[in-house]
Amino acid sequence: MPALITYRTPIQKDWVDYNGHLRDAYYLLIFSYATDTLMERIGLDADSRGQSGHSLFTLEAHINYLHEVRLGSDVWVKTHIVGFDKKRLLAYHTLHREGTDQALAASEQMLLHVDLAGPKSAPFSTHSAQALQALVDAQGDSMVVEWRSRPLSLA
Amino acid sequence: MPALITYRTPIQKDWVDYNGHLRDAYYLLIFSYATDTLMERIGLDADSRGQSGHSLFTLEAHINYLHEVRLGSDVWVKTHIVGFDKKRLLAYHTLHREGTDQALAASEQMLLHVDLAGPKSAPFSTHSAQALQALVDAQGDSMVVEWRSRPLSLA
Repeated sequence: MPALITYRTPIQKDWVDYNGHLRDAYYLLIFSYATDTLMERIGLDADSRGQSGHSLFTLEAHINYLHEVRLGSDVWVKTHIVGFDKKRLLAYHTLHREGTDQALAASEQMLLHVDLAGPKSAPFSTHSAQALQALVDAQGDSMVVEWRSRPLSLA
Repeated sequence: MPALITYRTPIQKDWVDYNGHLRDAYYLLIFSYATDTLMERIGLDADSRGQSGHSLFTLEAHINYLHEVRLGSDVWVKTHIVGFDKKRLLAYHTLHREGTDQALAASEQMLLHVDLAGPKSAPFSTHSAQALQALVDAQGDSMVVEWRSRPLSLA
């Protein structure tokens, strides 16, 4: 089963620093757009939001920067579902240059299912939970979660 | 001794989602600009970069999202030096709404001092190391590092 590809983009001019390298925050923006795609896959896309009034909020994220990325590079994001419970989803995104599988960055993220009417946390709908389980079943053991979140230390 | 204030900005239109809330990646962009200020404070600003050819690269970051932030809010960033060694700096940023001290988000970040000619890691100059030590001495125990990086888990 192929991995879940959640975003493709060229690196844009607004995203790079004075050296022409992708600024740290814009790696996370690319992962944020990848999460939007994941939301669509589980029935929380912009259209259905209008009906369901639910979304995912990021509670916490960890990011590892592994390689520089230059203006104009074409990149893509692979997403793995580490796990989920009634209200939360632990996702793992990796960023790759077009045509290669080497990771340029990796991010583990805890996402909370939210009823926008509060906003307050809410259990996933049956439809969303089934869609998440289908993604977990499909991904099998196709991806190693290599760059886990961890305490940072100078020691 | 007052804490180190590294950035002030209104929340901009490009930074918010369809709900008018600051998107997760843009919290990190604000912290990225705060790191730019920190670089200036230790002699690695845009002007001196042209001379020194050195900069800080983010190796790894952890971010905790604590409160939503709306379009038009005025926010500021406080920065604490958790520690540093010959080549690395562990920094802790918190985001706050103007007029309050409550944290809206917090991020611990491992930054690497880099010789851009490589680019390759390089020891801090004596000037930068002294400037970092002066910041550490000045901050005293003025800030609690409450939201440390950690492993994410559904358990």
